[in-house]
Amino acid sequence: MSEIQVTGENPRTFPAHWKKCIGTGRLGLALQKDYLDHLKTVQKEIGFSYIRGHGLLHDDIGIYREIEVDGVKRPFYNFTYIDRIFDSFLDLGLKPFIEIGFMPKLLASDQQTIFAWEGNVTPPNDYQKWRDLIKAITQHFIERYGVKEVLTWPFEIWNEPNLVNFWKDADKEAYFKLYKMTAEAIKSVHPEIEVGGPAICGGSDHWITDFLSFCKTENVPVDFVSRHAYTSKPPHKVTPDYYYQELEEPEKMLQEFENVRQMINDSDYPDLPFHITEYNTSYSPINPVHDTTLNAAYLAKILSEGGEHVDSFSYWTFSDVFEELDVPKAQFHGGFGLMGLNHIRKPTYHLFAFFNRLGAKLLYRDDQLIVTEKENGDIVAIVWNLVMNKGEKHDRSLSVQLPVSNGLYFTSTQSISEKHANPWRVWKEQGRPRFPSKAQVDTLKQSAIPYFESSQTEVTRDQLTLHLTLTKNEVRLLEINRVNDETDTYLGLDDHLIDTY
Amino acid sequence: MSEIQVTGENPRTFPAHWKKCIGTGRLGLALQKDYLDHLKTVQKEIGFSYIRGHGLLHDDIGIYREIEVDGVKRPFYNFTYIDRIFDSFLDLGLKPFIEIGFMPKLLASDQQTIFAWEGNVTPPNDYQKWRDLIKAITQHFIERYGVKEVLTWPFEIWNEPNLVNFWKDADKEAYFKLYKMTAEAIKSVHPEIEVGGPAICGGSDHWITDFLSFCKTENVPVDFVSRHAYTSKPPHKVTPDYYYQELEEPEKMLQEFENVRQMINDSDYPDLPFHITEYNTSYSPINPVHDTTLNAAYLAKILSEGGEHVDSFSYWTFSDVFEELDVPKAQFHGGFGLMGLNHIRKPTYHLFAFFNRLGAKLLYRDDQLIVTEKENGDIVAIVWNLVMNKGEKHDRSLSVQLPVSNGLYFTSTQSISEKHANPWRVWKEQGRPRFPSKAQVDTLKQSAIPYFESSQTEVTRDQLTLHLTLTKNEVRLLEINRVNDETDTYLGLDDHLIDTY
Amino acid sequence: MSEIQVTGENPRTFPAHWKKCIGTGRLGLALQKDYLDHLKTVQKEIGFSYIRGHGLLHDDIGIYREIEVDGVKRPFYNFTYIDRIFDSFLDLGLKPFIEIGFMPKLLASDQQTIFAWEGNVTPPNDYQKWRDLIKAITQHFIERYGVKEVLTWPFEIWNEPNLVNFWKDADKEAYFKLYKMTAEAIKSVHPEIEVGGPAICGGSDHWITDFLSFCKTENVPVDFVSRHAYTSKPPHKVTPDYYYQELEEPEKMLQEFENVRQMINDSDYPDLPFHITEYNTSYSPINPVHDTTLNAAYLAKILSEGGEHVDSFSYWTFSDVFEELDVPKAQFHGGFGLMGLNHIRKPTYHLFAFFNRLGAKLLYRDDQLIVTEKENGDIVAIVWNLVMNKGEKHDRSLSVQLPVSNGLYFTSTQSISEKHANPWRVWKEQGRPRFPSKAQVDTLKQSAIPYFESSQTEVTRDQLTLHLTLTKNEVRLLEINRVNDETDTYLGLDDHLIDTY
Amino acid sequence: MSEIQVTGENPRTFPAHWKKCIGTGRLGLALQKDYLDHLKTVQKEIGFSYIRGHGLLHDDIGIYREIEVDGVKRPFYNFTYIDRIFDSFLDLGLKPFIEIGFMPKLLASDQQTIFAWEGNVTPPNDYQKWRDLIKAITQHFIERYGVKEVLTWPFEIWNEPNLVNFWKDADKEAYFKLYKMTAEAIKSVHPEIEVGGPAICGGSDHWITDFLSFCKTENVPVDFVSRHAYTSKPPHKVTPDYYYQELEEPEKMLQEFENVRQMINDSDYPDLPFHITEYNTSYSPINPVHDTTLNAAYLAKILSEGGEHVDSFSYWTFSDVFEELDVPKAQFHGGFGLMGLNHIRKPTYHLFAFFNRLGAKLLYRDDQLIVTEKENGDIVAIVWNLVMNKGEKHDRSLSVQLPVSNGLYFTSTQSISEKHANPWRVWKEQGRPRFPSKAQVDTLKQSAIPYFESSQTEVTRDQLTLHLTLTKNEVRLLEINRVNDETDTYLGLDDHLIDTY
Repeated sequence: MSEIQVTGENPRTFPAHWKKCIGTGRLGLALQKDYLDHLKTVQKEIGFSYIRGHGLLHDDIGIYREIEVDGVKRPFYNFTYIDRIFDSFLDLGLKPFIEIGFMPKLLASDQQTIFAWEGNVTPPNDYQKWRDLIKAITQHFIERYGVKEVLTWPFEIWNEPNLVNFWKDADKEAYFKLYKMTAEAIKSVHPEIEVGGPAICGGSDHWITDFLSFCKTENVPVDFVSRHAYTSKPPHKVTPDYYYQELEEPEKMLQEFENVRQMINDSDYPDLPFHITEYNTSYSPINPVHDTTLNAAYLAKILSEGGEHVDSFSYWTFSDVFEELDVPKAQFHGGFGLMGLNHIRKPTYHLFAFFNRLGAKLLYRDDQLIVTEKENGDIVAIVWNLVMNKGEKHDRSLSVQLPVSNGLYFTSTQSISEKHANPWRVWKEQGRPRFPSKAQVDTLKQSAIPYFESSQTEVTRDQLTLHLTLTKNEVRLLEINRVNDETDTYLGLDDHLIDTY
Repeated sequence: MSEIQVTGENPRTFPAHWKKCIGTGRLGLALQKDYLDHLKTVQKEIGFSYIRGHGLLHDDIGIYREIEVDGVKRPFYNFTYIDRIFDSFLDLGLKPFIEIGFMPKLLASDQQTIFAWEGNVTPPNDYQKWRDLIKAITQHFIERYGVKEVLTWPFEIWNEPNLVNFWKDADKEAYFKLYKMTAEAIKSVHPEIEVGGPAICGGSDHWITDFLSFCKTENVPVDFVSRHAYTSKPPHKVTPDYYYQELEEPEKMLQEFENVRQMINDSDYPDLPFHITEYNTSYSPINPVHDTTLNAAYLAKILSEGGEHVDSFSYWTFSDVFEELDVPKAQFHGGFGLMGLNHIRKPTYHLFAFFNRLGAKLLYRDDQLIVTEKENGDIVAIVWNLVMNKGEKHDRSLSVQLPVSNGLYFTSTQSISEKHANPWRVWKEQGRPRFPSKAQVDTLKQSAIPYFESSQTEVTRDQLTLHLTLTKNEVRLLEINRVNDETDTYLGLDDHLIDTY
Repeated sequence: MSEIQVTGENPRTFPAHWKKCIGTGRLGLALQKDYLDHLKTVQKEIGFSYIRGHGLLHDDIGIYREIEVDGVKRPFYNFTYIDRIFDSFLDLGLKPFIEIGFMPKLLASDQQTIFAWEGNVTPPNDYQKWRDLIKAITQHFIERYGVKEVLTWPFEIWNEPNLVNFWKDADKEAYFKLYKMTAEAIKSVHPEIEVGGPAICGGSDHWITDFLSFCKTENVPVDFVSRHAYTSKPPHKVTPDYYYQELEEPEKMLQEFENVRQMINDSDYPDLPFHITEYNTSYSPINPVHDTTLNAAYLAKILSEGGEHVDSFSYWTFSDVFEELDVPKAQFHGGFGLMGLNHIRKPTYHLFAFFNRLGAKLLYRDDQLIVTEKENGDIVAIVWNLVMNKGEKHDRSLSVQLPVSNGLYFTSTQSISEKHANPWRVWKEQGRPRFPSKAQVDTLKQSAIPYFESSQTEVTRDQLTLHLTLTKNEVRLLEINRVNDETDTYLGLDDHLIDTY
Repeated sequence: MSEIQVTGENPRTFPAHWKKCIGTGRLGLALQKDYLDHLKTVQKEIGFSYIRGHGLLHDDIGIYREIEVDGVKRPFYNFTYIDRIFDSFLDLGLKPFIEIGFMPKLLASDQQTIFAWEGNVTPPNDYQKWRDLIKAITQHFIERYGVKEVLTWPFEIWNEPNLVNFWKDADKEAYFKLYKMTAEAIKSVHPEIEVGGPAICGGSDHWITDFLSFCKTENVPVDFVSRHAYTSKPPHKVTPDYYYQELEEPEKMLQEFENVRQMINDSDYPDLPFHITEYNTSYSPINPVHDTTLNAAYLAKILSEGGEHVDSFSYWTFSDVFEELDVPKAQFHGGFGLMGLNHIRKPTYHLFAFFNRLGAKLLYRDDQLIVTEKENGDIVAIVWNLVMNKGEKHDRSLSVQLPVSNGLYFTSTQSISEKHANPWRVWKEQGRPRFPSKAQVDTLKQSAIPYFESSQTEVTRDQLTLHLTLTKNEVRLLEINRVNDETDTYLGLDDHLIDTY
């Protein structure tokens, strides 16, 4: 039983970088109604500022085509779908965090692809055509959305070029060439558009240094640095339906944020923003951890502290409407999404929604607790009990003393745990229906609502003490509002005359 | 601890008369957006067939007016608002259960009014004009909605004429005259329109007999008999803000249903339908009981058994958008509504929503339990623990054995109690804000959701036994679905490899 | 045939004061669904900033009540409805332009009322209670909406106190007393809230001077001056259903704007803003002119030039959901509304929607034409042909030369006239159905759409000449967009191979 | 100038078979939001009963997959997407008209594909797996939607097997084998599910006879016969962007309907229903005719008379959200859709909407006119002026005498022509923007509204004569309603006192 004394002295600003950006399945999916329905709810209840995903140049969106005229192939740029997609994003209050990739089939130098949807990961077969394409899309975005708007969109070049499955041979020199060509093409349209990279993933931090040196040496524009972060260890079981991994401690991810930030600080570009353009526990879209309360409890610390090190970090992804490993084969399948299929909120969804209720003033923060104050004086805290050891079950008790002036207080809590707001568990009880009926979906939706409790407390010594016991992997939101008690204005009120409370 | 054995033998049909009709504040309120928003939700989640309320002829809807031409007043019938109102009802799947009343000011023979909105309760000053009015509205309804539709609308003449505040002097002869004039005017437009009365309230059952004798003797048309039912005793405290009463046992209301049914059976019209066109615990719109779980637990038996005695019984009313005692003065004020102000579902709302999930086949029923089966074989039950004694707190434990074949079952429960789905309690903790902020309303909405739990059980001896403990005034819905277990189809599934459940 | 040469030299800003504020029927109507549906459309297609109407303190909203405690009456302030109303306005992007009035029945010193809805127009019977009420509502608005928001709301004291039907005896001294008491009560809650008056109507301009002198002499706060403006002459026929009047020339209204502005300039408060808090052609809600194209053609000049003289002018009113002369008795009845009953746009609605498409740069303006340029270079003009003489029918022809550079242009026009977008005429053809069926309403909606035409023109000498012939009371919107011609990009295109154009 | 005398004698029922079914782009597109938005509008304003499209078994919906277990591939049926799609259809009031096809890649015996989306058109590589697949989907549909529902869905086997690009080698014997295997697999799940074929296209009517003989000989189940119909001649110009063809006369299509009906009548199955499961003018999705008024005027006769010969005929297709020739490359591109991209109604859309207003009683019909009566006595007619000769421009005048009793009549017309409701023309004036801006789309939408006119006529000799002049390819809806004239009820009405009409 730990006792925590929140003094409220020396408050500082809590940086809300956790909600700057969110990841998405390939952009072509953004034509789908379910995708947009999920995103609308996410924006209403969480409200990210940017969205980033693969596939801007993939053939399903179909921007790059060729038409044969008099025996000569010439490029045709088709913006029918990308206009529809970006219109949808902007309508929902989201700006594109542009990711340039993958390679249109007609421009590809080789046949290597990634994912069920076969994104081509090879360099262009013709750099002039590539530059023309990049200029054309940049120009089109400015024409349609206005230069003022487009100047707020970061353009990140490619995705994870340090991995052989995302960039042919993980060829660093080839990437630097692609980066240079692409960045210069973008800047030729408007020099103030922000470009960046190298969007690497896994343990290749030297790419960061090499990349910045390259930019310096070659005088290539760079406006931000980006990287990804996943904390899962190598899989110990891989099956057609599931992929099982252990996780590193969450501290490891924060440490990685800090390390790379330090590398940038030490480079020729110490002031560049640093964006984590993807992160999650596991990098596998069929790792069941994503459907669990553990995932939420695990990420709580990342959301709480990540913003101290990086300018944005983008959870991968908002929805299980996702096709990297083919069409999802079951209601729950270990997908990345905050929102599961059939519009069912997963525990991690609520973690984000809880963080969205925090105030801007940070009063206290430790490994499993964050306490903030809102503009109107309300205190909002989130507390969690991460238990990573298999089978372990220990609850965690703590007391938190909050500095409030005397008076009545209304405390309400919402909680997610193995017992509540855990539709994955309920779905297992239903017999794991792959394609649940509407009635089953209704039940799952109801099961996905956080547990609510409230109480009224009188504070007499300028201190409100909360005694809390959290079950395994519980995440709890606490909201403390000062009560403006109007009870006395009800004339003749007598609760004793009613047989219930 | 009682043990209940449901055999499932000799099942019969459960008559869903509890959802035939719902009461409403005066019809003029149906122009309001909030009213319609509440009604839309009620219809989606409960789905009544008819709606009945006062004030069809009240001056706010303004059907009856007079225009002076050359010094002579002549009637003008204005259907602007009533068309809008009935259009709204029909769009929501509700037919009007017409109540003819109260008296337009220009037709009133005296000034006596009722309610803050001043419904005039005196006989017409000119029966010819009254008949013309009744014919005009009937004719208009047929023109606008078609004769086929209007033939499904019952026309009830006046409201509670046996009470002096609803009908001047509670003059029975005067009522019979009004009834005859009105019924005959309606039938003159179309002889198959259903007319009825006497819509009495309180302990004046002899009106029923007298009314039917009058119809017989005078050869006056009558197609149904109606009555109201409230089970509250005289108030023991009346204050500007609240009205406190004890309640009779629920059995008393059912007994009253049966008694009147018997009186009809014994009359010259033994086959007439019998409608309870209003019922509730208390007849006061500022009795806090309406906001409580007690109200729900109390009414459970009425919903369960009332339909055995009457053809419809209409809960008074669906929403706290209501003005009989002036504009509501606080979020919770003891109003009749299933739905409170600001779209907050009250416990009794959920009682109705629970009943709406029952199946059509009745397997078992006792004082605090009803067990049904749906067409697809699912078993749905509602169990409750009515505790009327002040201060008493005893929980109730029972076991229920259900006849199901061997296999896996998924049981889900939703529950309302003093602890859960009790926004009235939470509102008290908030300091009883009369006009809550949007944030407070959000919290109240969240607090109003029933508590959800679920589990999976394996049945091995053709019997599923549920062990239940209900807290004071808890009402619980139980849904038992046979599981079609797909677990084995997940290749490589191994829940032990994930650190949570 | 006039020839107009628009040079585009010395452009200035077109002040969009015409859309600062819109009038509404009494605020209590804002609870109605139809009212809000109309307002939502108005805001989407026109987009006013403020809304002003009577009845804030009227008893249907019920803010002021008294409760008897121990034989003593004490005030009770009920914000249930006004919160709902202001929430709705703000949700639709509208701020309240507060009008303090009329008198709650319990505070009235006499029984004189106005309108079918009986607004009491007498001074308070107790100035202390009045001040307490004013403070209470001001305080409540700040608590609910925040001080920052409320500081953007003007508070106008009373309505048309110079008319005996709006203020008992049109007693100027009594009004000044009310003004002082009210303004000081408001300022006591927050000194920066804007207060103003005297909201007079008709030919009593000396009230303006007297009012400002009074404020100066008595040191009473005043932050703006307000007045109303109607241009109808005394009625020549008054019937139960209709009220007929001739109109003054539109110039007369503009002259009145200018005169009062000058009076303010010459006062001790030369810098005060001046708001026309009501204007229209006729002040009668049953003058058929409001339903006609004439009304639109007449007001075009007011919208075009009014903003040069006043800081806002508020058309009275946005919708025929209105009850001053009782519930509307027919689909079209001469109501003030831009939007008629059943969501049917009237010609004047389109006038406002046309003005909403104008650019901010004013290129040219005369009596029947306004030409503007938008930020993107598009030219948008409105031209009209006001014909006030009865029976007269002359069309008007003109040519307009616009300064545009060489190239292709797309010109589209929308037009309202006696023939098109004139649902009033169509309704007459339908037999003037008072309460039209849904099918008739659908036809009226379709008839209410402006006539659309478009063409493509090639400009070769830096000048685009439009030859226009307008029918009687036609109002036409002209939009000229430079064409970015993509025709050549369609390979193999050959329009001659298709049998139509 | 023709004179047409409609006597109204011997009326018969107008068979509404034209609205039984509608075509769609491949089913996978039904996941898209725009697709569903278009379909929602179509259903509201036209209201088809069934929807039919390709691609049920195509790999983008992904029903058929294989999973390797212990080195053995076994089938996995994924219903995630098809459930979503059929749920959407049913929510919109549409039942699937099932088309079994094309071949999942994993079951294909060869690599031949059709369309940009690469539908495989080869026989199964393993008939056992194919039968299992067919059974599995049929069984799944019954489980999810209920047997009662699925029994109303026709199952058509394959699409246009008589064409080499739709069925490898157009191998008839291979098709018959596929048909037999598939039909029997379906019937093995439920013997009452309707199966049919052969869904041929073009001039291969002998397939009909052969198919029915085959069924008879082999005792293969067959419940309906299906065929397609297009009336375009071979192309005279084919370009990357457009495909130009002349059209046969519309009579030719009707003759084809009749011929095949006769073949069925003469077969061993004379009572089988006959469905035209696709028809249009041109079979090319880039023939500009589809965007024109000509297309509407051409099809009018088909809609008017087609239902006399066939049980359903399904226009191909409802929307330009369609990908057979890749992502559409421009706003207008000659697509099949009733609805163009960006929710713009094309002329043929209105043709269907006009037909949807016709009554059930057929009073008169000729080549360019259909006159009907509605249940309420309203007369509704459609008249058109098809001009197929290039360059020709002649208007057509006619008079129509309608048998109505004396009284006042309100006549309203809606019209589409080269001038009105022709967004294709307006888009050309805009410079044919491939990816129009939102402002351009708004203009196009406005331009797409039919021209409306109305008038009132007094009938004195039991005959209403309409004098009509139609421009080239105009299609006009005429609605004649008897007027219930309320003019006299307006007291004091005097239209002469208002300066406009």
